[in-house]
Amino acid sequence: MSRQRATAFVPGHVTAFFSAHPGDRPAAAGSRGAGVTLTDGVTVGVSAADGDDGTRVLDGDSGAIGAVEDVLDALGVPAVDVSVETDLPIGAGFGVSGAAASGAALAANRAFDCGRSENELVRIAHEAEVDRGTGLGDVVAQARGGVPIRLEPGAPGVGALDGIPADARIEYVTFGELSTEAVLGGDTTALSAAGEAALDRLRADPRLPNMMAAAREFARSADLLVPEVETAIDAVEAAGGEAAMAMLGRTVFALGTGLSDAGYDPDACRVHPAGARLVSDAAVDDGGETAVHR
Amino acid sequence: MSRQRATAFVPGHVTAFFSAHPGDRPAAAGSRGAGVTLTDGVTVGVSAADGDDGTRVLDGDSGAIGAVEDVLDALGVPAVDVSVETDLPIGAGFGVSGAAASGAALAANRAFDCGRSENELVRIAHEAEVDRGTGLGDVVAQARGGVPIRLEPGAPGVGALDGIPADARIEYVTFGELSTEAVLGGDTTALSAAGEAALDRLRADPRLPNMMAAAREFARSADLLVPEVETAIDAVEAAGGEAAMAMLGRTVFALGTGLSDAGYDPDACRVHPAGARLVSDAAVDDGGETAVHR
Repeated sequence: MSRQRATAFVPGHVTAFFSAHPGDRPAAAGSRGAGVTLTDGVTVGVSAADGDDGTRVLDGDSGAIGAVEDVLDALGVPAVDVSVETDLPIGAGFGVSGAAASGAALAANRAFDCGRSENELVRIAHEAEVDRGTGLGDVVAQARGGVPIRLEPGAPGVGALDGIPADARIEYVTFGELSTEAVLGGDTTALSAAGEAALDRLRADPRLPNMMAAAREFARSADLLVPEVETAIDAVEAAGGEAAMAMLGRTVFALGTGLSDAGYDPDACRVHPAGARLVSDAAVDDGGETAVHR
Repeated sequence: MSRQRATAFVPGHVTAFFSAHPGDRPAAAGSRGAGVTLTDGVTVGVSAADGDDGTRVLDGDSGAIGAVEDVLDALGVPAVDVSVETDLPIGAGFGVSGAAASGAALAANRAFDCGRSENELVRIAHEAEVDRGTGLGDVVAQARGGVPIRLEPGAPGVGALDGIPADARIEYVTFGELSTEAVLGGDTTALSAAGEAALDRLRADPRLPNMMAAAREFARSADLLVPEVETAIDAVEAAGGEAAMAMLGRTVFALGTGLSDAGYDPDACRVHPAGARLVSDAAVDDGGETAVHR
């Protein structure tokens, strides 16, 4: 079964609202909240390296991601080449680092026949993200796919998920990066209270438009809105659409054609119908499974 | 959001081995075990009926499925037309009734904007299956997709799942129906002991070939093998492949080209990379999302 090369695809994930929950163990730390996984995502290839040192490529350039390195260490694989490719903006609230960590876990496990279960791989990637401080809930959400609701924080076996049964076109525009550390490094008491209120609201009515409304209320209560984002959200609402801010990035996402209707020139994708998955070489060749990735 | 018409796709599911776990409440009853979800599956359409009575169509002919009726009752939807279409054999261990119940839950919730979460819909379908005695673990497995391991029995919030991270071609042949009631209605003590042993074996080494070996051992220990099935499994093994019996049907499934290599003329599909999902009309039109369903 060992074939020393494998590829995984992990959907992007925008968080609509969240509360932060530190824990003694990284597996028990995380966030509650909700968001949307996207057909725009991250493809991670892992293969045995020729020499003692492997290469790290991020969108065609040399570049390593901390959480990916921790995942490879946790799996104890030999020297590998890692390629991370994404159409998503990096550092703008799309969960790219979490996706890279998850994809590396799935691909390395397959390439080197590590024999880990899906839950174990998700736990390893979640722990790496939490340890690096680059995310709290993207990994578990990306493992589920769809429109995940994080009911309880933490890795599989600790946390708990639900989902909104929805398929939809999603549009997004990004105005730049936002420092996750600056927000999460400060006092998150008010933010988390707003996040818990938003989650209660969504659980009482788990529908997509209600999630968007809860997200807008959260962003205002938690004082996270930046001017370009607020302007875009207001414009989409004025045009009769539903938009919210992606946590944590200078990014707005909207249902359907919300941003187009408001005069923006957004990227467009859909809710991803599946969680993080190995990409079959056979399916790539015969054009089958890959269609779900776009 | 109400549009009175929706379609869902639910993957087929073959159970490799299981233990039966009755419960006081249907949500807490179910099975432990493991199996494979299939890109061959069940498409369920639900739409508002013209008159007081809705129609029920199963593969082009008039035909109702008990668990589907219970799901519609639980959701309290008005008179509906229900269409269930599948390429899978019915009553042969592919989880068609569970898939029909899950698909009806997803589609009716969408068509009539019932506002239930994914976990609630899975619970409703699982309860219907358990109440009807037509299945114990297909619904929760089909909701996850991939190669699900049922760690703990029951609906979401009660049960627990893991999965084997694998993509593979799956072949199958069916020699006819096997009465689920005849097996599950008798003493299941020995069967469940064999199922628990198989689960322990798989958890210690969660790889696909080990699942197939555990399944063969389970079928022999639980004395479930029927002659045609045993002959086919032996033929695949003799040809160097991996095959097992689908529980509960006169059905053999194999990894890769196992059955073809042994001289059979099987149907072929793949591990389904996603769980039960709404089918987007837009995606059907643009040829996008539907590719995952075949």
